[in-house]
Amino acid sequence: MDRPVYDFTIQNLGPAQIPSPVEQSRRATLYPMHYVSDDQQIIYDIQTSAQNPCNSDPLLIEKAGPRRQIFFDPLKTHAAIVTCGGLCPGLNDVIRAIVMCLWYQYNVNNIFGFQYGYRGFIQRFNIPPIQLTPKIVKDIQHQGGTILGSSRGFGQEVEEITKTLIKHNINLLFTIGGDGTQRGALNISNYVRDQKLPIAVVGVPKTIDNDISFSQRSFGFDTAVSHAVKAIDAAHIEAYNSINGIGIVKVMGRQSGFIAAHAALANNDVNCVLVPEVQFQLEGPYGLLAHIEHRLSQRGHAVIVVAEGAGQDHLDKANTTDASGNITLSDIGPYLVHQFKNYFKQRQIDVNIKYIDPSYIIRAAPANPNDSIYCAQLGTHAAHAAMAGKTSVLLTLMNSQFVHIPISLAVSQRNCIQPQGELWRDVIATTGQPPFNPPD
Amino acid sequence: MDRPVYDFTIQNLGPAQIPSPVEQSRRATLYPMHYVSDDQQIIYDIQTSAQNPCNSDPLLIEKAGPRRQIFFDPLKTHAAIVTCGGLCPGLNDVIRAIVMCLWYQYNVNNIFGFQYGYRGFIQRFNIPPIQLTPKIVKDIQHQGGTILGSSRGFGQEVEEITKTLIKHNINLLFTIGGDGTQRGALNISNYVRDQKLPIAVVGVPKTIDNDISFSQRSFGFDTAVSHAVKAIDAAHIEAYNSINGIGIVKVMGRQSGFIAAHAALANNDVNCVLVPEVQFQLEGPYGLLAHIEHRLSQRGHAVIVVAEGAGQDHLDKANTTDASGNITLSDIGPYLVHQFKNYFKQRQIDVNIKYIDPSYIIRAAPANPNDSIYCAQLGTHAAHAAMAGKTSVLLTLMNSQFVHIPISLAVSQRNCIQPQGELWRDVIATTGQPPFNPPD
Amino acid sequence: MDRPVYDFTIQNLGPAQIPSPVEQSRRATLYPMHYVSDDQQIIYDIQTSAQNPCNSDPLLIEKAGPRRQIFFDPLKTHAAIVTCGGLCPGLNDVIRAIVMCLWYQYNVNNIFGFQYGYRGFIQRFNIPPIQLTPKIVKDIQHQGGTILGSSRGFGQEVEEITKTLIKHNINLLFTIGGDGTQRGALNISNYVRDQKLPIAVVGVPKTIDNDISFSQRSFGFDTAVSHAVKAIDAAHIEAYNSINGIGIVKVMGRQSGFIAAHAALANNDVNCVLVPEVQFQLEGPYGLLAHIEHRLSQRGHAVIVVAEGAGQDHLDKANTTDASGNITLSDIGPYLVHQFKNYFKQRQIDVNIKYIDPSYIIRAAPANPNDSIYCAQLGTHAAHAAMAGKTSVLLTLMNSQFVHIPISLAVSQRNCIQPQGELWRDVIATTGQPPFNPPD
Amino acid sequence: MDRPVYDFTIQNLGPAQIPSPVEQSRRATLYPMHYVSDDQQIIYDIQTSAQNPCNSDPLLIEKAGPRRQIFFDPLKTHAAIVTCGGLCPGLNDVIRAIVMCLWYQYNVNNIFGFQYGYRGFIQRFNIPPIQLTPKIVKDIQHQGGTILGSSRGFGQEVEEITKTLIKHNINLLFTIGGDGTQRGALNISNYVRDQKLPIAVVGVPKTIDNDISFSQRSFGFDTAVSHAVKAIDAAHIEAYNSINGIGIVKVMGRQSGFIAAHAALANNDVNCVLVPEVQFQLEGPYGLLAHIEHRLSQRGHAVIVVAEGAGQDHLDKANTTDASGNITLSDIGPYLVHQFKNYFKQRQIDVNIKYIDPSYIIRAAPANPNDSIYCAQLGTHAAHAAMAGKTSVLLTLMNSQFVHIPISLAVSQRNCIQPQGELWRDVIATTGQPPFNPPD
Repeated sequence: MDRPVYDFTIQNLGPAQIPSPVEQSRRATLYPMHYVSDDQQIIYDIQTSAQNPCNSDPLLIEKAGPRRQIFFDPLKTHAAIVTCGGLCPGLNDVIRAIVMCLWYQYNVNNIFGFQYGYRGFIQRFNIPPIQLTPKIVKDIQHQGGTILGSSRGFGQEVEEITKTLIKHNINLLFTIGGDGTQRGALNISNYVRDQKLPIAVVGVPKTIDNDISFSQRSFGFDTAVSHAVKAIDAAHIEAYNSINGIGIVKVMGRQSGFIAAHAALANNDVNCVLVPEVQFQLEGPYGLLAHIEHRLSQRGHAVIVVAEGAGQDHLDKANTTDASGNITLSDIGPYLVHQFKNYFKQRQIDVNIKYIDPSYIIRAAPANPNDSIYCAQLGTHAAHAAMAGKTSVLLTLMNSQFVHIPISLAVSQRNCIQPQGELWRDVIATTGQPPFNPPD
Repeated sequence: MDRPVYDFTIQNLGPAQIPSPVEQSRRATLYPMHYVSDDQQIIYDIQTSAQNPCNSDPLLIEKAGPRRQIFFDPLKTHAAIVTCGGLCPGLNDVIRAIVMCLWYQYNVNNIFGFQYGYRGFIQRFNIPPIQLTPKIVKDIQHQGGTILGSSRGFGQEVEEITKTLIKHNINLLFTIGGDGTQRGALNISNYVRDQKLPIAVVGVPKTIDNDISFSQRSFGFDTAVSHAVKAIDAAHIEAYNSINGIGIVKVMGRQSGFIAAHAALANNDVNCVLVPEVQFQLEGPYGLLAHIEHRLSQRGHAVIVVAEGAGQDHLDKANTTDASGNITLSDIGPYLVHQFKNYFKQRQIDVNIKYIDPSYIIRAAPANPNDSIYCAQLGTHAAHAAMAGKTSVLLTLMNSQFVHIPISLAVSQRNCIQPQGELWRDVIATTGQPPFNPPD
Repeated sequence: MDRPVYDFTIQNLGPAQIPSPVEQSRRATLYPMHYVSDDQQIIYDIQTSAQNPCNSDPLLIEKAGPRRQIFFDPLKTHAAIVTCGGLCPGLNDVIRAIVMCLWYQYNVNNIFGFQYGYRGFIQRFNIPPIQLTPKIVKDIQHQGGTILGSSRGFGQEVEEITKTLIKHNINLLFTIGGDGTQRGALNISNYVRDQKLPIAVVGVPKTIDNDISFSQRSFGFDTAVSHAVKAIDAAHIEAYNSINGIGIVKVMGRQSGFIAAHAALANNDVNCVLVPEVQFQLEGPYGLLAHIEHRLSQRGHAVIVVAEGAGQDHLDKANTTDASGNITLSDIGPYLVHQFKNYFKQRQIDVNIKYIDPSYIIRAAPANPNDSIYCAQLGTHAAHAAMAGKTSVLLTLMNSQFVHIPISLAVSQRNCIQPQGELWRDVIATTGQPPFNPPD
Repeated sequence: MDRPVYDFTIQNLGPAQIPSPVEQSRRATLYPMHYVSDDQQIIYDIQTSAQNPCNSDPLLIEKAGPRRQIFFDPLKTHAAIVTCGGLCPGLNDVIRAIVMCLWYQYNVNNIFGFQYGYRGFIQRFNIPPIQLTPKIVKDIQHQGGTILGSSRGFGQEVEEITKTLIKHNINLLFTIGGDGTQRGALNISNYVRDQKLPIAVVGVPKTIDNDISFSQRSFGFDTAVSHAVKAIDAAHIEAYNSINGIGIVKVMGRQSGFIAAHAALANNDVNCVLVPEVQFQLEGPYGLLAHIEHRLSQRGHAVIVVAEGAGQDHLDKANTTDASGNITLSDIGPYLVHQFKNYFKQRQIDVNIKYIDPSYIIRAAPANPNDSIYCAQLGTHAAHAAMAGKTSVLLTLMNSQFVHIPISLAVSQRNCIQPQGELWRDVIATTGQPPFNPPD
């Protein structure tokens, strides 16, 4: 088996020659600081087998962390933070951590929050940035959403955004957002490099779907799963308490079904998980409808969890995109409800279908403690990376270590459930669901 | 002002001549029991004013509680419990309390749970009752729904139900359900009385909407409000974080808007509450649409809570009823979303509408401690009432006292928000919303 | 049976002759306001029986609510709010409601929060008041505690406090606190009346123990019970999972055991409730120790909930008081643990005792939705009362109506569990506990 | 820097020659199963640097997962599960997963739960095992604790335990417990091997303190941190609302302070974290007391989180051990309270100290969804390992992969916070606390 070869080389704005103030900072009084040096790396592919013996020259990824020498002079540094796209638990935690680290560890006191995504950089919208201080961000982690607001789109207006960065003397740009946002960040980063502007662009990838590549886990995902579990609990109770009760819960997951899969594993009451990565037939002896009929005849109730992007081949394509460029999905949830109703009507079986779409209840939740800690670490490491002059990078966790990943690499592909992999194996074992397809 | 005159007279199956075993029961060892006698009553109308001076002969309601003499011989008593209609937090708590009180306080050891509502009494469905014991109900209060299952309808099949009651030697029938259920209970009660069968029918009114008459508060309502508040929190976060964000939350409330009103009071972030009791215009200078446009121009976001039964005059009537006989409502939630979208498109204003329908997440929740205590008290008092030979009664709380209310009286009208009353006054004061109608 | 006679007469500062601005306020645009007039009253004692027939001239209590005429000119009115004593869920909700009502309904824009209890009025501590506005109080209900801080004592320094009131031109003083606080408020109120100062003193009674007289329920109590229930759940799990496991949970309740009793009713896993109102023996065949030994031999585990003020007769009196004048209690929790350990050691029975003292976890919680609504209503009614010129009154809920109670009446006695009453009857029925005393 | 060399060699009972039934099992109908082979391994040390270049022959750890060939014939297999030591969130999830995997994937239908730890194997206690089936374990994950009960000790009675294993024809022994438990498991495993008995002993390490070696994360830890965070929130509110308020929270952590450290990172309101790994002085200009005095003078309140094993050098050693052999710790919590009281009394500064010990509230909680998923995976992998004939192994997560670790290796050392490492660096940066020791 050929392994793919990835280029993990990190861009630096230039030599980092300014001694870091971290050790003398207000927050680390008297404590010796343990810096990370650029030669500290971690092995990317840690799995070996007889066919895939250990590589003596493995792919290595740069470790994140505070550097002994930094690139930017703290006193002259101006930072900008922007949050883009849909809400996700933990946005405020990340903002808070960037501000706290820059302020207390580096004494950077000019930090601006640009509002409502990239739109906040576009002059014609006339949305002023807000100054961020420890006092302002102190308690924001307790509330969901982002104090900076968010919106989709405008990541292509690179020139306009750069003009605004120059106008505010920005040296550090932190982009918290998904795929499209980070593609925009890469374009900005390339553009300012061509202009020889000393601006570091550091991204913190945000995707409630957990589908970012080269990231072990996306922030907010654990919180999202917790809330999805509650919706499934309700669907189970409703289904269980009715004669031929069918509970259907739609969760987020446009192109990957991680929330659906994890929530099903945590809940244990789910009988079918439908995800974008695994096609399924509705009709026929192997189809979902016949399976649920069989399940009802055996147990009297059934619970189905469906990711929003599952089964799109069954639906008429909308052929439109939203402001972020995401293809508009047709709604699989009501479609399934409709199909079940028709099917059982024809079969003359009375069923009770209860459909739950928790949607924004999940997105708008504040981060749970696990995500809070993770967001704090991501934000802090992002601040360290930017001060050290790293640019065009994302902060992620890989093999349980915080690392720098080139944005270009991370946006080149999407993380998906492997139908042959361990997660899907666990889902099958938990739900007992068949493939919903005729055997080959 | 004429006050309505209600008849609170309670039906008894006959003289209660058997000494109550409660004082000697396993659960009250050595403690003197404080019985309630039939002459203990509470005043119905406790408000007075200059126009409405104190009545020297006020309407009185019978207090609930254990009686010194009971009607049924515990050793020969068989009890049946049934839960009907939609789920509601606390159903299992009520079941548990009835079983525990009958078993431990009265030594009644033949208690049957009839499954899936009145359907469980209908022979042709062939659904056997389950025997209920302390061991079985011990921990059921921790789970939502009802261990007996539920369904709608079949309350008219009085003869069939009675046949089943006779077949199982049932003396006590506990009906936990809404309006339709209790109408059924009344019919059964009348029928068995005509047949001179010694069967007590005691209802515990269930309505998540809190719209039962002669009941200060319906069980599960407090839990429902708590969960509605969480959905509104999410809507607020979503609206607040978008440019011109509009959060719309639909909550339960077919004919009364108590959940919407209370959730708005608890949350404090709601700008409009729409309830069935108060009509509103959408169009025109006084309409909802113009008001929201104004609000967006001032504050940039808005949150609307709508009870499912609100604004039905704007919708095409479905003209159908469900199995419980409830009129099928057209869905006001998506209708509002549609109207807002159109309006702001015409006005060429970009808005971000986020719609949340928490639905079954609310219904299927287990009772919170406040509702748990209340359900335990309702169930216990229902058991006391039935053992004492009360029949055709509901257990409710009035003026903070547990009382017996004739079913016929309770189902004669529905509880609603008074647009001139204190609750709606508080809502207006909290939301600052105008009447959405032109001044008279 | 003689009924006690209480004097519910309300003090008014004088005739209320200024038209209320409420109907024209920002928050009630166009809505007709439904004022409450001073002759609207509710019946105090609503229970009747053969021995206690209906009184044609019953005791009446004044209803709270907005008045058509008010005493204070809003433009010249300065208000002060103070929170005293131990924390309690809902303090911030009450503060918020008073500010919101004064500001939006009455256009009173000079509202001061005096910090750290009455200490904030004492010059030598030099603690400046903070100006309270809607912007400041907007979201405070989401956090526990009180934004004004709190402390005990200093309620006797009436002259000093009055001097500060005069210095800040205060006309309305809102005192949120317990028994001692309201006694202080009464003294202040009497003193300023003697000085002919037009200052209304309105209290909102705060007691997490629910032991305030003439109040159906104290704010924060429901939240406190919810959290106590969680601690009991843990104790039950620990006891249940050990051989001869004994879980002991101490909850608040200095002179009344309402939290202990309600939490036991909600939880259903409690085997003994110990409260200050009911004495118990430890030793002897009827004592607690022998009972628990018996329980362990039957069921292998036991759960005990003890109010902090229970069993003080077993302990050496500390004979000291805290800054609020409360008698310092000796700690019954560790004492019980010690007694159990000794007893079972002597009996040569291995037991596993798990002691939980949730203490401040309960006090510092934010209010749940139920308490939030209640606090909002209490605060709003307090503002209406003060603006109308009522003074020396507390806002409470009686027979489910908001009413004005003279402070002098409310502090004259404490609310306790009646060992002969319905609450204790329900506790006994739930726990099955014997009296822990030899029969008379 | 020399790296330690560990021996990750796994013991197998013998050649696994029976085809696995997993692919044909009830739960994996029609799905191809993706087996893991014994040559699949993961790299142990994934960090490299200039000084520590990549090793071409790195240490490798065996991957866990279902094997194509198994050692035990399912039809003849009898399994035993035991839970030992203190409670920890997730115990029931692990039990459930083992039972579900054995039953549905391997058709093993003889599964016994031995009760109250190793005590359940000791004849003289006469505690019968309970038969475990899917029906019994179906919903147990919703409750805290362990349905098998737990206790400490008796792990040395190897002969006695083996006799019981033989008596019940046990082939698979699953030991869920801490250090002492797994040492016992190793002894049993060695003993049965010497006796040539075909018994696989597979452990799932349990430590709420997260201090198990060769395990990235212990189950229940995330849930424990979540609950510790709530206690710290309360302490913060109490401290913040008092004049010179000091909130002290004691959390679990006998020899490692992971819960204290993580909870502080999640909470952000903590000013000092005290852990067993880092000594601190109380007295003197660099001591904790002086630091808190300074903090109070600056900010008026302080929050301290202390792990139970911290500062034991300040206390009189109890010199006793509990039934598990753990050294009995003297109680640092009350000791700190006492020291603070004395210090500030001498300094004549009024302080308000609020001490919270959430203790069993944390231990007895049910697992949160994150821990639930993890426990399910641990239990499932443990079942796979045992069926394949692996013995003397623990199931853990390393570098985000489930692996087999020799028990002997895992119990050879304990996981601790590295004072020079990244976790402690993050704690310092968050709290801003100094070293509490004079500079070297």
